[in-house]
Amino acid sequence: MKPIEWLGNSLKILDQTQLPQKETYAEIANYQEAVTAIKQLKVRGAPAIGIAAAYGIVLGALSIRTSDIGIFRKQLGVIFDDFAASRPTAVNLFHAITRLKTSCREDSVTAMRQCLVDTAKAIHAEEEKAMIRLSKYGADLIQDGFKILTHCNTGQLATGVTYGTALGIIKKAFEQGKNITVYVDETRPLLQGARLTTWELHILKIPHILISDNMAGYFLHSGQINCVILGADRIAANGDTANKIGTYSLSVLAKANRVPFYVAAPTSTIDRNTPTGAKIPIEERNSDEVLQISGVSIAPKNTRVSNPAFDVTPNKYIKAIITQNGIIEKPYKRNIESIFQEGH
Amino acid sequence: MKPIEWLGNSLKILDQTQLPQKETYAEIANYQEAVTAIKQLKVRGAPAIGIAAAYGIVLGALSIRTSDIGIFRKQLGVIFDDFAASRPTAVNLFHAITRLKTSCREDSVTAMRQCLVDTAKAIHAEEEKAMIRLSKYGADLIQDGFKILTHCNTGQLATGVTYGTALGIIKKAFEQGKNITVYVDETRPLLQGARLTTWELHILKIPHILISDNMAGYFLHSGQINCVILGADRIAANGDTANKIGTYSLSVLAKANRVPFYVAAPTSTIDRNTPTGAKIPIEERNSDEVLQISGVSIAPKNTRVSNPAFDVTPNKYIKAIITQNGIIEKPYKRNIESIFQEGH
Repeated sequence: MKPIEWLGNSLKILDQTQLPQKETYAEIANYQEAVTAIKQLKVRGAPAIGIAAAYGIVLGALSIRTSDIGIFRKQLGVIFDDFAASRPTAVNLFHAITRLKTSCREDSVTAMRQCLVDTAKAIHAEEEKAMIRLSKYGADLIQDGFKILTHCNTGQLATGVTYGTALGIIKKAFEQGKNITVYVDETRPLLQGARLTTWELHILKIPHILISDNMAGYFLHSGQINCVILGADRIAANGDTANKIGTYSLSVLAKANRVPFYVAAPTSTIDRNTPTGAKIPIEERNSDEVLQISGVSIAPKNTRVSNPAFDVTPNKYIKAIITQNGIIEKPYKRNIESIFQEGH
Repeated sequence: MKPIEWLGNSLKILDQTQLPQKETYAEIANYQEAVTAIKQLKVRGAPAIGIAAAYGIVLGALSIRTSDIGIFRKQLGVIFDDFAASRPTAVNLFHAITRLKTSCREDSVTAMRQCLVDTAKAIHAEEEKAMIRLSKYGADLIQDGFKILTHCNTGQLATGVTYGTALGIIKKAFEQGKNITVYVDETRPLLQGARLTTWELHILKIPHILISDNMAGYFLHSGQINCVILGADRIAANGDTANKIGTYSLSVLAKANRVPFYVAAPTSTIDRNTPTGAKIPIEERNSDEVLQISGVSIAPKNTRVSNPAFDVTPNKYIKAIITQNGIIEKPYKRNIESIFQEGH
C-alpha cells in the first residue's frame, strides 16, 4: 500500500474517503486538484498533508508556463497561498511550504523547478526515515500483553510512508512479537478510526476492537487499557497538542484513571513559533459531517451543529511525546527546544 | 405527542426507532410484542420502559384463558419473567414488575386482571405527576442564559409522560422564560441525542446545537457549558449512577472543568437493593449497532466490536440527584435513604 506516490509528472494518492469500501487510487495531474484532495480529506493526517502539499506545489510549479524567473516566482507565490489556505490546523503543511520557499532560491526557472522537485522528494524520504525511528522509540514503551487505546488514524494513511506515528509504534511492537490488542475509537464525525484504522490493522493482522468514542472512558475506568497512544496535528512549543477532536477528553480520562497518555509525532509536527495551545487555530468544518453518515441523515433537517475538527490537550496530561529524535518528557518547553538544538 | 397510550385492550406506542424520519405509532396487541418492542428499543428510557412493561404485563394477563386462579398465577409468572429478561440495566422495569406482583394478590382471575390494569395505570399516572414535580425542582438550578450539555434522550419519549427527566427540567426552565441553549450529544451508537432529543427540542422550539460525543470535552474545557444534566437507568443506594454509555466520561470532564454535573431521575430509578454501582449489570448489545449506522456499514466486515450500552458514574462526580421528592446531595447513601423514609 502506497498512500502517496510521486510519478514524475503527477501525484498518485489512495483516496481515503472511499475506504474501507473501496481501495481507489486517484492520479492528481494539477495543483488545484491537490488542494481539493487535501480540503476534502482524500489525503489526511498531518505528515501526509505535508508531503502531499509539497508534491502539489511541484505540480503547480511544473505548470507555470514562463522562463521569466520573476513571473515564475509571482505565480509560485499564489500556489503557496492556495495550499496554505487549504487546512489551518496541521502544521506540517506550513512547514513544507516554508521549506520549499526557503530551500529554493534559484535564479532560473529550470533550476527552481528541479529544486522544488528535489525538496519535495527529500521531505517524503525524510518522513519515511523519521517514522521508522519514531516507531522504534515508541515500541520500547509497549509491553507484551498491552491493551492500547488509540483515536483517529495515525497509520501509513496518515503519514504517507511505511510506518505511521501512533499506529507505526503499534505496528513495530507487533513486529517485535508483542501480544497486543488495540482499542480503536471510531472517531466521529468522519470515522477515521472505524474506516481507516481498522482497515490498516486488519491488513497488519493486529488484534483490535472497535468502540464508539463515548465508550473509551468505560474501558479506561474498568482497568482494561494499559496506555493511550495517538498522533498530533500541531504541537506547541510548550507541548500543548492539537489533535483530532476527542483527544482532550481521552487525556483527561487517562489521567483520572492513571493510564499513561502518549503523543507520537515527527518533529515536523512541532511548531516552535506557537508558544501555547491557545494560539493554535482550530478548523471548524461543515455541518453535514455531523448531520450525515455516509450520506444518511441522522438528525432532523436544519438542526444547528458545531463541528470543531480538533481540540487542544494541555501539556500536563501528556506523559511523553514520542518523536524520531527520542522521547520528550516534562518540562516540555525546555526539552522540546533541546531536541532541536541537539541537531538530531 | 403521546409516546405511550393505553387503549383499554391494547398499547399504542410511538416507535422511537423510526424517528426522526417517521412519526410512526405501533399498536401492540399482545405481550410478546411488548417484550420485543422493549428489546428493540421501540420504547426506551428507564421510566418509559417501566410503564410499557406494566401495560405489557396487563396485555399478557388479559390473554390468559382460564378462570382458575392457580393456573392464572402460574402463567402470569412466565409473563413476569419474560419482561424481566428483556433488558437488564434500567431498574424501573424491575420496580414495575415487583409492584404488580406485590400489589395484586386477589383471589379471582377477574379481580386480578382488574388490579393489574389499575396498578399499571397508577404507575403511569404517578410518573406523570412525578416528572412535573421533578422538572420544577430541577428548573430552579437553571439560570437565565445557561448553556446546558445533555446526553442521550431524557424527554417525553424516555418517560412516556408530559415531562422528561433532564429534558423535562430543560422544558420547564424554557417555559419559565429562561433563555437557554442545549448542547446535544449525538449519543452513539444508537444516536438517541441526534435522532430523538433534537426532534423533541425542535418541537418545543428550544435552541439547541448538535455535537458528536467526542466534542463535549472541547466545549466543557472552553468554558461554554454552565451545567451538565442527564438521566439515569439505575441509581445505586450510594448514588453511583448507571446511565447511557458516555455518561461516566462526561462526569469526569465536568469535574475537571468545574462544571456542575446533575442526574435527573424519578425515585423509581433508585435501586436501594443495589449497594454500589459495581453491582449494576451492564447490558452488552449487538455488534451491528456499532458497525452500522442506519443500515450503512462504517467499518470492514467482521471487525470485532465492544458495545456496552451503559456505564457507571461514581457518586463523587455527581453534584446532585434531582428527583420528584427534591434534590439529593452528598452524602448520597444517607440522603437517598432519608428521601424514602420521609414518605414523600
